[in-house]
Amino acid sequence: MPNAKLLLQYDGTDFHGWQIQAEARTVQGVLTDVLSRLEHRPVTVHGAGRTDRGVHAHGQVASVVLTREMSETEWQRALNANLPPDVRVMAVEFVPPDFHARYSAVSKTYRYTLCLGPVLSPFLYRYAHHFPFPLDLAAMREALEAIIGEHDFASFGTRERAGKTTVRRVYDARLWCEGDLLHLEITANGFLRYMVRTLMGTLCEIGRGRWRASDMERILRARDRREAGPTFPAKGLTLLRVRY
Amino acid sequence: MPNAKLLLQYDGTDFHGWQIQAEARTVQGVLTDVLSRLEHRPVTVHGAGRTDRGVHAHGQVASVVLTREMSETEWQRALNANLPPDVRVMAVEFVPPDFHARYSAVSKTYRYTLCLGPVLSPFLYRYAHHFPFPLDLAAMREALEAIIGEHDFASFGTRERAGKTTVRRVYDARLWCEGDLLHLEITANGFLRYMVRTLMGTLCEIGRGRWRASDMERILRARDRREAGPTFPAKGLTLLRVRY
Repeated sequence: MPNAKLLLQYDGTDFHGWQIQAEARTVQGVLTDVLSRLEHRPVTVHGAGRTDRGVHAHGQVASVVLTREMSETEWQRALNANLPPDVRVMAVEFVPPDFHARYSAVSKTYRYTLCLGPVLSPFLYRYAHHFPFPLDLAAMREALEAIIGEHDFASFGTRERAGKTTVRRVYDARLWCEGDLLHLEITANGFLRYMVRTLMGTLCEIGRGRWRASDMERILRARDRREAGPTFPAKGLTLLRVRY
Repeated sequence: MPNAKLLLQYDGTDFHGWQIQAEARTVQGVLTDVLSRLEHRPVTVHGAGRTDRGVHAHGQVASVVLTREMSETEWQRALNANLPPDVRVMAVEFVPPDFHARYSAVSKTYRYTLCLGPVLSPFLYRYAHHFPFPLDLAAMREALEAIIGEHDFASFGTRERAGKTTVRRVYDARLWCEGDLLHLEITANGFLRYMVRTLMGTLCEIGRGRWRASDMERILRARDRREAGPTFPAKGLTLLRVRY
């Protein structure tokens, strides 16, 4: 009974997020259906990160225990032959039984993409948020320094259930340009819900000059969601990779 | 009453092609609706090429006579504010009254894209045809030489109405790789319907070794659609640019 690690890509546009739901099309739901059909029994699929509705993945990881005698390559082919084209299994790897996509994860990297140009290409509108305004990148980069390290990110997330910590450790955060796209990439040991989207919204307030770079530290220390900027739309967000 | 040249991009996935139809969503239909609303009168929009259902455009050109007093930039903004996100106006230019998007065109360039890798990315499945087979690119390139110049392309298109010529002049045709994508780019003074898709289907028969490079000339000379290879799916095809 091998434990399998699945490397997944999906276009989140037509999914109601990762997490399985009775009435909505979700990535975990679609995967669970196909795996259960191939295994002739109900299976449970664990995902590294619960991406929200409309969020994409370049490197989501799922784990599942499989019983059919097939090789890694045969599993990959069988899955891709049965999954819809907006989810793909990029690799299947048999891993030790204690591997768990969520609990074994050491860090995750998310990317948020803005299009700063005057026109948002019809080939990108599903994957980037249109923000055609001049931005002070130097100020945004200075502000970004403040989030590196271990902090309470309560100002940037939805409230967690009682007893759940809002402290996360950010290992790396950077802004980089590619043509008229601006990417924010953040690697952390975990993320609060809406954290990257609200960080991007806050950075853009600083980039437009409404707030100063130094306000980022004040907002962090406030631990109050009302202090931060807007939560940017889901479609600009992609789960890039998960490290174990 | 300026005559305007519109440079357009669209994702063809959700359109029933360029040409206006009573019951279906088409690019010309959507553009005509928006322009007529902005002009407060029915307008006629001419397109350089009638792309088929599912075909994309990076550089389609349309022409239309406008009467409202607005600058080129104002027209571009007004159009993009009213068009759906899968069609964008990249530029508006006022041109001499004799300019006509279709009749003034000197050449058009189309691109056909294959994904040769084992897995077709969920971010590319709308824009590339998955063809995960080894291909002899040298043979395909040799075959491609045969179509350069003026030829009767009847073997590669649908039958034209009586009296319409199937002769076209190909100025340039090349195959190039980008990661596991293979692009075919062809520039000609015009194209028969399905011509690029059938050329790609025929080149792939040669690439897989079913036919030889030298068969291309024989197929051209036959002027018989039954001699050529399959017509590949619309989604891999993009109208790249139109020259005037």
